[in-house]
Amino acid sequence: MNANLPKTNAPGGDYVPVIVHGGIAYVSGQLPRRGDELLFKGKVGAEVDLATAQRAAAVCAELCLAALADAVGSLDRVAQILRITGYVASAPGFVQQSQVMNGASEVFVAHLGEKGRHARTSVGVAELPRGAPVELDIIAAIRTGE
Amino acid sequence: MNANLPKTNAPGGDYVPVIVHGGIAYVSGQLPRRGDELLFKGKVGAEVDLATAQRAAAVCAELCLAALADAVGSLDRVAQILRITGYVASAPGFVQQSQVMNGASEVFVAHLGEKGRHARTSVGVAELPRGAPVELDIIAAIRTGE
Amino acid sequence: MNANLPKTNAPGGDYVPVIVHGGIAYVSGQLPRRGDELLFKGKVGAEVDLATAQRAAAVCAELCLAALADAVGSLDRVAQILRITGYVASAPGFVQQSQVMNGASEVFVAHLGEKGRHARTSVGVAELPRGAPVELDIIAAIRTGE
Repeated sequence: MNANLPKTNAPGGDYVPVIVHGGIAYVSGQLPRRGDELLFKGKVGAEVDLATAQRAAAVCAELCLAALADAVGSLDRVAQILRITGYVASAPGFVQQSQVMNGASEVFVAHLGEKGRHARTSVGVAELPRGAPVELDIIAAIRTGE
Repeated sequence: MNANLPKTNAPGGDYVPVIVHGGIAYVSGQLPRRGDELLFKGKVGAEVDLATAQRAAAVCAELCLAALADAVGSLDRVAQILRITGYVASAPGFVQQSQVMNGASEVFVAHLGEKGRHARTSVGVAELPRGAPVELDIIAAIRTGE
Repeated sequence: MNANLPKTNAPGGDYVPVIVHGGIAYVSGQLPRRGDELLFKGKVGAEVDLATAQRAAAVCAELCLAALADAVGSLDRVAQILRITGYVASAPGFVQQSQVMNGASEVFVAHLGEKGRHARTSVGVAELPRGAPVELDIIAAIRTGE
């Protein structure tokens, strides 16, 4: 059941959305876009405020889950979200990267419960592809066999 | 024996300090703080000089080890530090991120010897949560069974 | 056969080029350098244009593969490139990090075919060690046994 997940996007370059190997899935960095349309744009702390950045982070998280579900068939096969890394395009002096990424973290727990809990790193970067305010990648464990 | 390691900090958001799965531990990004008090603040190359940044990196490394020990019971169960990623909040023109992170790398080797040797990536970012000069996350292999 | 790969560089700090554990290789962040000589320098979007940055990214990718081949004996033992993370030192307003990293992605596919396809994250950072325009790290699966 992948209800309430957005449609996945084609990769923005010469890579694949997800690689699964040995029960671990590596999901490519997701921007908050729908197809070629970037849904949020600009630096957090300048053009983009905290609440908007949290919504952008939530979209990135949903796209990570959608890519994962596409790759392994269903979110039911996710054993555990392991780590998420959140990159926040930050205006000078903006230091609430962790609050921004709470918008992403909540999505994983909402969809997966305990299996959605994760280690996390949040950093503030200079620029992100296409001018996005947030980018997110994840590593997840996948149930194999049965 | 987790002697000489600092007390772990509560996560700064909706995530967990460490996820262990399949013998691999993912430790969340650690800032150089004691509880809610940030021990170092500012950009490296501006408010924070190289030697101070190395000390901040060392604190982050100790906090990674403390979180790891808390999660698996003891550092004795660490089989190998695999990768560390160091994020250095960098003033324009500061390019000694690798020297900063030597302050962290030495901590892993001091506590774990050969098991503390690791692959490393060091980058200079625009901003870090709370205005920290350094953030560090790690991946480690954990001995299972016996 | 590691033909056409550059000579590996000594690490720029207290770490090792590659850690292999449990069939997974973690390769340290690679800068586009030959020994102590940085082959490209400056911010992408300012001193370094897109085409030059793509060549720098390709050099980083070749150095990742060279380090991997050194660590495991031969690229023949690579089962799959899993994830690559590309850090692009970006001038303000430069948002083509993904295009830059296509220069790296192509190298993996050129050397390894399907096994070279990978998940990818590309971000724009403030500064990189030594003033490099691009840094790249990778995670790869290694064939074990036989």
